[in-house]
Amino acid sequence: MRIVVTNCNTTQEMTEEIVRGARAAAGPGTAVTGLTPQWGPESAEGWLDSYLSAAAVIDLLRTYEGPAYDAVVMAGFGEHGREGVRELVDVPVVDITEAAAHLACLLGRRYGVVTTLERSCGQIEDSLELAGVGRNCAAVVGTGLNVLELGDAERTEAAFVAAAERAIAAGAEVLVLGCAGMTGLQRAVGEKLGLPVVDGVGAAVKLAESLVGLGLGTSRVGGYARPLPKGRVWGRGVG
Amino acid sequence: MRIVVTNCNTTQEMTEEIVRGARAAAGPGTAVTGLTPQWGPESAEGWLDSYLSAAAVIDLLRTYEGPAYDAVVMAGFGEHGREGVRELVDVPVVDITEAAAHLACLLGRRYGVVTTLERSCGQIEDSLELAGVGRNCAAVVGTGLNVLELGDAERTEAAFVAAAERAIAAGAEVLVLGCAGMTGLQRAVGEKLGLPVVDGVGAAVKLAESLVGLGLGTSRVGGYARPLPKGRVWGRGVG
Amino acid sequence: MRIVVTNCNTTQEMTEEIVRGARAAAGPGTAVTGLTPQWGPESAEGWLDSYLSAAAVIDLLRTYEGPAYDAVVMAGFGEHGREGVRELVDVPVVDITEAAAHLACLLGRRYGVVTTLERSCGQIEDSLELAGVGRNCAAVVGTGLNVLELGDAERTEAAFVAAAERAIAAGAEVLVLGCAGMTGLQRAVGEKLGLPVVDGVGAAVKLAESLVGLGLGTSRVGGYARPLPKGRVWGRGVG
Amino acid sequence: MRIVVTNCNTTQEMTEEIVRGARAAAGPGTAVTGLTPQWGPESAEGWLDSYLSAAAVIDLLRTYEGPAYDAVVMAGFGEHGREGVRELVDVPVVDITEAAAHLACLLGRRYGVVTTLERSCGQIEDSLELAGVGRNCAAVVGTGLNVLELGDAERTEAAFVAAAERAIAAGAEVLVLGCAGMTGLQRAVGEKLGLPVVDGVGAAVKLAESLVGLGLGTSRVGGYARPLPKGRVWGRGVG
Amino acid sequence: MRIVVTNCNTTQEMTEEIVRGARAAAGPGTAVTGLTPQWGPESAEGWLDSYLSAAAVIDLLRTYEGPAYDAVVMAGFGEHGREGVRELVDVPVVDITEAAAHLACLLGRRYGVVTTLERSCGQIEDSLELAGVGRNCAAVVGTGLNVLELGDAERTEAAFVAAAERAIAAGAEVLVLGCAGMTGLQRAVGEKLGLPVVDGVGAAVKLAESLVGLGLGTSRVGGYARPLPKGRVWGRGVG
Amino acid sequence: MRIVVTNCNTTQEMTEEIVRGARAAAGPGTAVTGLTPQWGPESAEGWLDSYLSAAAVIDLLRTYEGPAYDAVVMAGFGEHGREGVRELVDVPVVDITEAAAHLACLLGRRYGVVTTLERSCGQIEDSLELAGVGRNCAAVVGTGLNVLELGDAERTEAAFVAAAERAIAAGAEVLVLGCAGMTGLQRAVGEKLGLPVVDGVGAAVKLAESLVGLGLGTSRVGGYARPLPKGRVWGRGVG
Repeated sequence: MRIVVTNCNTTQEMTEEIVRGARAAAGPGTAVTGLTPQWGPESAEGWLDSYLSAAAVIDLLRTYEGPAYDAVVMAGFGEHGREGVRELVDVPVVDITEAAAHLACLLGRRYGVVTTLERSCGQIEDSLELAGVGRNCAAVVGTGLNVLELGDAERTEAAFVAAAERAIAAGAEVLVLGCAGMTGLQRAVGEKLGLPVVDGVGAAVKLAESLVGLGLGTSRVGGYARPLPKGRVWGRGVG
Repeated sequence: MRIVVTNCNTTQEMTEEIVRGARAAAGPGTAVTGLTPQWGPESAEGWLDSYLSAAAVIDLLRTYEGPAYDAVVMAGFGEHGREGVRELVDVPVVDITEAAAHLACLLGRRYGVVTTLERSCGQIEDSLELAGVGRNCAAVVGTGLNVLELGDAERTEAAFVAAAERAIAAGAEVLVLGCAGMTGLQRAVGEKLGLPVVDGVGAAVKLAESLVGLGLGTSRVGGYARPLPKGRVWGRGVG
Repeated sequence: MRIVVTNCNTTQEMTEEIVRGARAAAGPGTAVTGLTPQWGPESAEGWLDSYLSAAAVIDLLRTYEGPAYDAVVMAGFGEHGREGVRELVDVPVVDITEAAAHLACLLGRRYGVVTTLERSCGQIEDSLELAGVGRNCAAVVGTGLNVLELGDAERTEAAFVAAAERAIAAGAEVLVLGCAGMTGLQRAVGEKLGLPVVDGVGAAVKLAESLVGLGLGTSRVGGYARPLPKGRVWGRGVG
Repeated sequence: MRIVVTNCNTTQEMTEEIVRGARAAAGPGTAVTGLTPQWGPESAEGWLDSYLSAAAVIDLLRTYEGPAYDAVVMAGFGEHGREGVRELVDVPVVDITEAAAHLACLLGRRYGVVTTLERSCGQIEDSLELAGVGRNCAAVVGTGLNVLELGDAERTEAAFVAAAERAIAAGAEVLVLGCAGMTGLQRAVGEKLGLPVVDGVGAAVKLAESLVGLGLGTSRVGGYARPLPKGRVWGRGVG
Repeated sequence: MRIVVTNCNTTQEMTEEIVRGARAAAGPGTAVTGLTPQWGPESAEGWLDSYLSAAAVIDLLRTYEGPAYDAVVMAGFGEHGREGVRELVDVPVVDITEAAAHLACLLGRRYGVVTTLERSCGQIEDSLELAGVGRNCAAVVGTGLNVLELGDAERTEAAFVAAAERAIAAGAEVLVLGCAGMTGLQRAVGEKLGLPVVDGVGAAVKLAESLVGLGLGTSRVGGYARPLPKGRVWGRGVG
Repeated sequence: MRIVVTNCNTTQEMTEEIVRGARAAAGPGTAVTGLTPQWGPESAEGWLDSYLSAAAVIDLLRTYEGPAYDAVVMAGFGEHGREGVRELVDVPVVDITEAAAHLACLLGRRYGVVTTLERSCGQIEDSLELAGVGRNCAAVVGTGLNVLELGDAERTEAAFVAAAERAIAAGAEVLVLGCAGMTGLQRAVGEKLGLPVVDGVGAAVKLAESLVGLGLGTSRVGGYARPLPKGRVWGRGVG
């Protein structure tokens, strides 16, 4: 099967990193194609970026002309758009935020999310709540690092561990990497902290494979019916 | 004071109708300027439209070059984007969804929302929940009419009353017009139904005037901090 | 329009202070009349006081013989009675507790309340919850000052700021003055703390003006139907 | 031990009926004294009545000069005041609303309340919620009868059974008599409906006996601290 | 009346201690019979123990051949099984977890539970939530002591007081002994802490007496219908 | 990898059916071993059965001596025990109840569960709530069929469709088969109803494969720490 993984921002290097994470998780018969939006923010940090990203990712899939795919993984942690993509495409859609939480719920009684900037915590809380998995979330905490600073592995790791301690004190028994750019960190920090750490990219790939494997697709009854035919203009094309 | 009212779609006639509703509600010293997005959907019905609309409305305000304004009213019922606009502008921002609910809470123990298509109900429920006013919402119900069919006043009124009965049976003591395009309907259906009917456009204008009058603005601490400076591309500019 | 503002206690000086706050918030066409209960507690601090106050305020409006008014503002933060007054009078009724919360929700993702004695915190939490605006309340905290000690501005301000830090640590992005007697403090503490501070008296005046301006009144369907005609005796008249 | 049972209204016959119910439930060593407020509503139906009743019942206990008692039972279903009485007296206080719900929770997974007028349903829901026992309440439904019509046993029984069917359809496995004036009905309707029916008066007497028997009293830490000494005037003494 | 009190583990000394606590609480006409499961864990600490205990306690009552009894008290704090026993027996069933919480709700606005090991806190939270009394629980905290260490009274008391401070800081106004083996401790720690402390064993005995006294029994409508006749094998009988 | 699938009852035929469903869902490299408890109920319908089943399934895994396995799937819909198994074994544990809900959340905004007897609905609701996925459950409804009647495919299908209509009317956009014995039904009823139908057995197999594939295991911090060493007796061994 083929899974399309959409980055939520225009930074090509981050797409590549996400694809690496996705491929590491994917099963033997799964091909992973990374897609980078042609417009949008260079990183998504806050509500404005998130809405811009949502429209750009929907547009990316709307105009996609590559080989057919079996599922979409949306790799923007806490970012908007998943319901719109569910309306648009005819294959299962899994967002890394919800995916990480779904798996985390299976591993402990309460989980915590460690993300980048504090300003993103509220968005993530809302995203988890609406996905239906907010109940067992003990805390969403920030490391103070921004998305593009995650390249410095040592610093990121230290900041993650420090923030994780706060989530654990709030009751978390499992942790979630709260940014697609943290992919790959799970093993190192998991060992340091002595508890399971879930990466949303890997989780979403596995959930997408699961849905495809079971022949399940998005319901068209109710909320996620196909978009109505109508006039739409997709942006102005200037920075 | 000047209030900018943003339509959530590109249909100029609807902007005019919304502006009429806003002006009818505005106090003597308030000027109302209607703005129509330069891109986006011609009507917002569903999640895909809503995210496209959110980006287009943010872009509209980002590139606005008219006279200074004191507040923004976002006139898309149940549509996304309010948090992003709060980050962007330095004046209070009121969304008509939350505005109607805030006033409805003051008029009865439970309120209900009557909207257009059933497919929009979920979005509205989510919007109310995140705005912090979902608790006293007894029901969100659809009339089965789409946004652009609202022109036929008689048919709209009949459909509204029929749907309203379901909301009342679920416990609603106050009703909310669940679409900016319904503005003006409140008096007629309120009389027929014998209970108060709140129009979000009018409600948002009054709440915006209230915040401006009290010298209150969006908090920059936490969730609604200003957008970080970074590269962003606003769409591709093709339909 | 005329707004009647009811103090929740028998202390005339506090009525005057509240009226000053209300007038500062009122629009140009709004006359504010302050009313002091003829019986009840000299300050409301705790449940017993609150219930006594509720009955006294209802009685005050029941026996009011002054000029006609267009709305009632109930100026007892966290005090009971609003639903009873809604049954009694034929104009909109706005309680300062809920009013402050409604506006605060528009200014940040979470708000906090800073009140007088710790013993009042529970009452305020309950009041917010039943008004339908408890979801986004991050914390209700006390300053340790009682109502009649609020006269000492410097001490009050210092105590407010100290308590506010606790609310902010709990996630508040906006603050609410949790006592009618704090009216006027919002600007000073807002500047010190660097975030918006909402005064319930001003908020309630603006919301009352909004409802009157939109021609909206309390629903008579369900909970707030008019009181049934029957024998009632209003107290024993001794201290 | 002696339990004082306070009627919430001034109708002496209803006090007597409540006392009969309380005595039927009381253990061999328990004396029951019924108290009728000297002022207040002749029946409590709605918020205005409820707040008036709350103040009158508090005043009743404040000025009580009879023999010492060990507990207070407040016999107004859904009426306000319990927290104020907890502040005032130094013995346990049990309200019949919460009492019925506490016992009902032990008898089935969900319970329902059948009360008098539909207008009272909201008050009861709020009372259960704040008492901490709202979660397992499936429904609060009205019979359409007012308090003083309950004398007609046959009609009351028929109306109760009809309303109870709606609560059962909503998931109730246990029923609660939603008015002190229904005391005595539990056996007859329980047999007809084939499920347990809890009378709040009896339930409160047993819970009061339980607390006294265990030597437990109201906490003075936090919410229910003793009222502060201050000037208070208890009503005007005219109808 | 006769109340059967079931220990949740196979330690006979603990049954005796529980029976002492139950008898101290029981009214003059109440006989208390303690029962020890013939199989199960020697102490219940964690989920595995709890499920094993649940089956063993159900089996204990299923095979009971002693004198008829009027109610069952299940004396395992936070342990599973109560719903199964409700299906099985034809008399009221009260679990000490829920019992303590029901009474605690009557004594303060929020209560806290102090238990043995931290690992038990989650189970207790779940048990309270499903019993319908979780809303007013401020905190469940552990002392770090295991069940069989509770014999050392001084150490237990000190650990209890230290843990209780954390619950009080979280808002608890009343405390609950979170282990059947703590029975008897309530008076000593209550005095030290200056607030009421509820022992679940005593609470459950009083609630059982209350239900029996009122002639109330478990509803057979819905969740707690009698077990269906079918083949069942009760364990393998080896350690 | 090897997944052990535990039936919750002693009926060997049902184990075989479950194993067929599990194998149909399993990936190419996954071996599925079905296990039937050596004791317990012949079908689990109600709380008593569920607790008996929980202990028997834990004992089954405790005494398992077959080849090493990588994950456990617990195939009792709505049955207890998953937390105990998580404590016991060192590999991921997935219960079919939670598994179906996790996947259903990805396919629609609200899901519904269609189960066997009405008496099981409450248990399932509780199981979903504690698993952290109750929020988006619109309804749990019964077909009126018991577990062992599910053999009649036509009747089961008709009863399922009738019950499903009620869940859809309550807002379900996705359905879940609420019994392990319904495995295989998903395709037929899904086509009839026009929406996705999730089978818990298949869902759990995929989630187990996902966790194993990602190298994730149960957290030992907090709730699911290993059972303490102590004396335990596993049943009496007679029917």
